[in-house]
Amino acid sequence: VAVLQDEMPAPAEVRFDCTGIATGKTRNDLTVTMVRPFAETFVPATGESAFRGGDATAPPPLALFVAGLTGLPMTQIRAFGKRLGVPAAGLRVETRVVRDRARADRVYQTAPRGFEIDIHLGAAVPDDDRAALGAAARKGCFLEQTLGQANTIRHRLAVAEGWREV
Amino acid sequence: VAVLQDEMPAPAEVRFDCTGIATGKTRNDLTVTMVRPFAETFVPATGESAFRGGDATAPPPLALFVAGLTGLPMTQIRAFGKRLGVPAAGLRVETRVVRDRARADRVYQTAPRGFEIDIHLGAAVPDDDRAALGAAARKGCFLEQTLGQANTIRHRLAVAEGWREV
Repeated sequence: VAVLQDEMPAPAEVRFDCTGIATGKTRNDLTVTMVRPFAETFVPATGESAFRGGDATAPPPLALFVAGLTGLPMTQIRAFGKRLGVPAAGLRVETRVVRDRARADRVYQTAPRGFEIDIHLGAAVPDDDRAALGAAARKGCFLEQTLGQANTIRHRLAVAEGWREV
Repeated sequence: VAVLQDEMPAPAEVRFDCTGIATGKTRNDLTVTMVRPFAETFVPATGESAFRGGDATAPPPLALFVAGLTGLPMTQIRAFGKRLGVPAAGLRVETRVVRDRARADRVYQTAPRGFEIDIHLGAAVPDDDRAALGAAARKGCFLEQTLGQANTIRHRLAVAEGWREV
């Protein structure tokens, strides 16, 4: 991890692009490209279970979100642990995400209710060192910082004559 | 999809839990469980490329987040399209996520810069129907609603005597 940090200009821009194509009944095939600082491409997929009309060939989108929300602080803790001299061996993280969903006419609306992240460091580390590592990882975690503030998401819908904001 | 909606109480609670275990050099093996309304389990993984000290056996956490952010509105658009009578055949979505990262002492801090989601419906659908579907999908998309507001994430760090909030 140190390689990336040390070679990055400060401040640095990180950019991910994704193109999703609807394929199976509920399956979406996705091409995720890290555009900056280094080009890398990944091809995950999302889907729904048979119960919800899908073919169960991939996890639902929210499962990928929760996996990213759990994996990102884990990556931060291990990377920052090296830098701060706090051993992160045996790391285990447990996350809980709850949302509400209410019908609205023919469709439904939704809102988040709560996010909880429990961090277990396996090594015998003094409590203050643990807390320092946890706090640093929180500030360095893109998803933590993003979810903690109100973000503007720009939506454009392709229409007959160009784009419409929705 | 209609099956789930019709059988759900309104309002309904949706809950995902995740346990992440640090395994490889940067790899995290994750068990994501949809606890409510229906129990399902998924086992994604995250990792880092060899360039960043990893073994490149799984996508980075942020790639899963961006995949979820792209896949979820696609799932909503297809589900709500059926309910609103708007065909969603040929759906393609393109997403761009940009964040800033700045060094802070031995570690770094981060902040989101922008989110853009472009929605392409393939079928010959009147523009107003497209816009109605796009707006409904936005309100029904958990990630849209979550990112659009400031959320409180509760962090607990396991310490010698119980838990510490970080």
